[in-house]
Amino acid sequence: MGIEHLPRTIEFIGKGSGCYVRVVDQRALPESLEYLTMHTAEEMVRAIQSLALRGAPAIGVAGAEALVLYALNESLAVDSALLLRELQEVGKLVSSARPTAVNLAWGVACVLDEAARLEAMDCGLTELKQGLVAKIYKMEEEDERANRVLGLQGACLLPANARVLTHCNAGSLATVFFGTALGVIYAAAEAGGIAQVYVDETRPVGQGARLTAWELSRMGVPATLICDNMAASLMAKNQVDAVVVGADRICANGDTANKIGTYGLAVLAQYHNIPFYVCAPSSTVDKALVCGDEVIIEQRSASEVTSSEISGVRVYNPAFDVTPSCLITRVITEKGIFSPEEVAACI
Amino acid sequence: MGIEHLPRTIEFIGKGSGCYVRVVDQRALPESLEYLTMHTAEEMVRAIQSLALRGAPAIGVAGAEALVLYALNESLAVDSALLLRELQEVGKLVSSARPTAVNLAWGVACVLDEAARLEAMDCGLTELKQGLVAKIYKMEEEDERANRVLGLQGACLLPANARVLTHCNAGSLATVFFGTALGVIYAAAEAGGIAQVYVDETRPVGQGARLTAWELSRMGVPATLICDNMAASLMAKNQVDAVVVGADRICANGDTANKIGTYGLAVLAQYHNIPFYVCAPSSTVDKALVCGDEVIIEQRSASEVTSSEISGVRVYNPAFDVTPSCLITRVITEKGIFSPEEVAACI
Repeated sequence: MGIEHLPRTIEFIGKGSGCYVRVVDQRALPESLEYLTMHTAEEMVRAIQSLALRGAPAIGVAGAEALVLYALNESLAVDSALLLRELQEVGKLVSSARPTAVNLAWGVACVLDEAARLEAMDCGLTELKQGLVAKIYKMEEEDERANRVLGLQGACLLPANARVLTHCNAGSLATVFFGTALGVIYAAAEAGGIAQVYVDETRPVGQGARLTAWELSRMGVPATLICDNMAASLMAKNQVDAVVVGADRICANGDTANKIGTYGLAVLAQYHNIPFYVCAPSSTVDKALVCGDEVIIEQRSASEVTSSEISGVRVYNPAFDVTPSCLITRVITEKGIFSPEEVAACI
Repeated sequence: MGIEHLPRTIEFIGKGSGCYVRVVDQRALPESLEYLTMHTAEEMVRAIQSLALRGAPAIGVAGAEALVLYALNESLAVDSALLLRELQEVGKLVSSARPTAVNLAWGVACVLDEAARLEAMDCGLTELKQGLVAKIYKMEEEDERANRVLGLQGACLLPANARVLTHCNAGSLATVFFGTALGVIYAAAEAGGIAQVYVDETRPVGQGARLTAWELSRMGVPATLICDNMAASLMAKNQVDAVVVGADRICANGDTANKIGTYGLAVLAQYHNIPFYVCAPSSTVDKALVCGDEVIIEQRSASEVTSSEISGVRVYNPAFDVTPSCLITRVITEKGIFSPEEVAACI
């Protein structure tokens, strides 16, 4: 047990034509650890939409890698300027694969910015492609580095022998490696400081039951699976010292979109005087959105919620909700720990 | 669509040896409406423990009927005094089938009290058995009557075109007929006053998704199924005018045990200034318990929560939680509408 037993969620392999991306197929967990290999931007988009690959930081890097797959394996452009134009078009498709997490657009923008920078320097086509590959490898490294820094910083906020509750999966599987909210838990656990992690199963897709529980098992961190509606009862019994969650988009005022259920947990945490920590890389902050009202919430299929359709009964299935900044104790990033109101200005 | 499309949940059939109880098998819903027939007290206990039959008022009547099945189909007692003694022993077994709902013990006590009363009047064995059968038929009638009165009273508390959120199934299927929290909704709907019912799916057993959604469909009441963790998000969007739930045990101080998740909903309702109504027959009030800390919470199997056991990951599965009286706006009973603090003194 330990960090060496967690897989890299997403890995770019190769440096030229024929390169591919290997990702953990998160639909197969916890029953089996399987990988998908993707050679085209479209394959990557499908993996993101089907939730084979999910988690805001992970799909940020995946969006970036989708463009590089296109550049190396699909583009017929004969010069750098044409490739840049193609990538801008493909980038629009990739960015819109899922609407709520800002990281996807951020990842696409990272690659487009790098491509534009190189093109402006009169790079040749081959040199530009090599530059994009280098960028991707750097983004993967940077994701892990940021998570480890974030984890160490966040761990300092937890009491000794902490009992922590988490929702969804903001773990290694939601990033390239190590995780955000679970990164905080892993860093604290290495220092011997985690007594128990309560894992919300996180309906309807079960990222907590399937992914977070699996990660914690591999890490050897004590974990207890609960249904989402049991969290309040644990809080009332003084069993929870802190709530740690990830984020899909942090607005300029600190309002935070994250997996559906996060907002309710934040209300419950405030009622029980339990600190509520949002853990996310700085790429999750969207300075362009003033507040949570502006976040587009992805609505997903009824079939995720029930397999027994009942005549006349509708299903409401928003994938995310918005937690107002007033319910967030601190935002933990790789650049420091901030109050939600100051995070956009400080990073 | 309408009330005539709901089945009677539990029905005592016959008046002598060979009598049986017919109950809706709630494990088969919503896919199919199936019935179980039970001839012995033990069969009834198994139906209660397996959740084929559930809901506090329903298992109250079921507990009573278990004793009468024993008296008519199983007892070898040769006189009334011996039968009474046997019933007292069988009553202990039946009462302990599930620990949290007080109604089970209440139903058993109703039959034992009637048996003791008749025995003290020097009733013969046949006369005593006939008396118990009459008692059972009266209890079934009384359950429906109480629910209809409760429903009409509660409906007055809802605004016009109400959007109501409910948890678990406090419907017709949780009673002999008509329901408690859903009884309020049905009474309001008959007056044209229900715009939408939001149905918590109610993990892990799914009484909301399977039973409440099915009832509302049969009744033609507009219903939307949500995952439990989505309720807060609807409240924040001003989509919920009231929360109505049932109860398994109401303590002397008004603290109320009900399906796991109820407490969290009550906290959320208070945060959003939404009235929170507990709907229950007066038999749910347990004057002997001072407060919620004294309620025994049934812990159920991990297999209800997950079919994918993960090595080293525990599962916490309490079937109920306790909502303190301070979070309950009103308790709606067949004897009137009360503040939670006054309900025990008033009924």
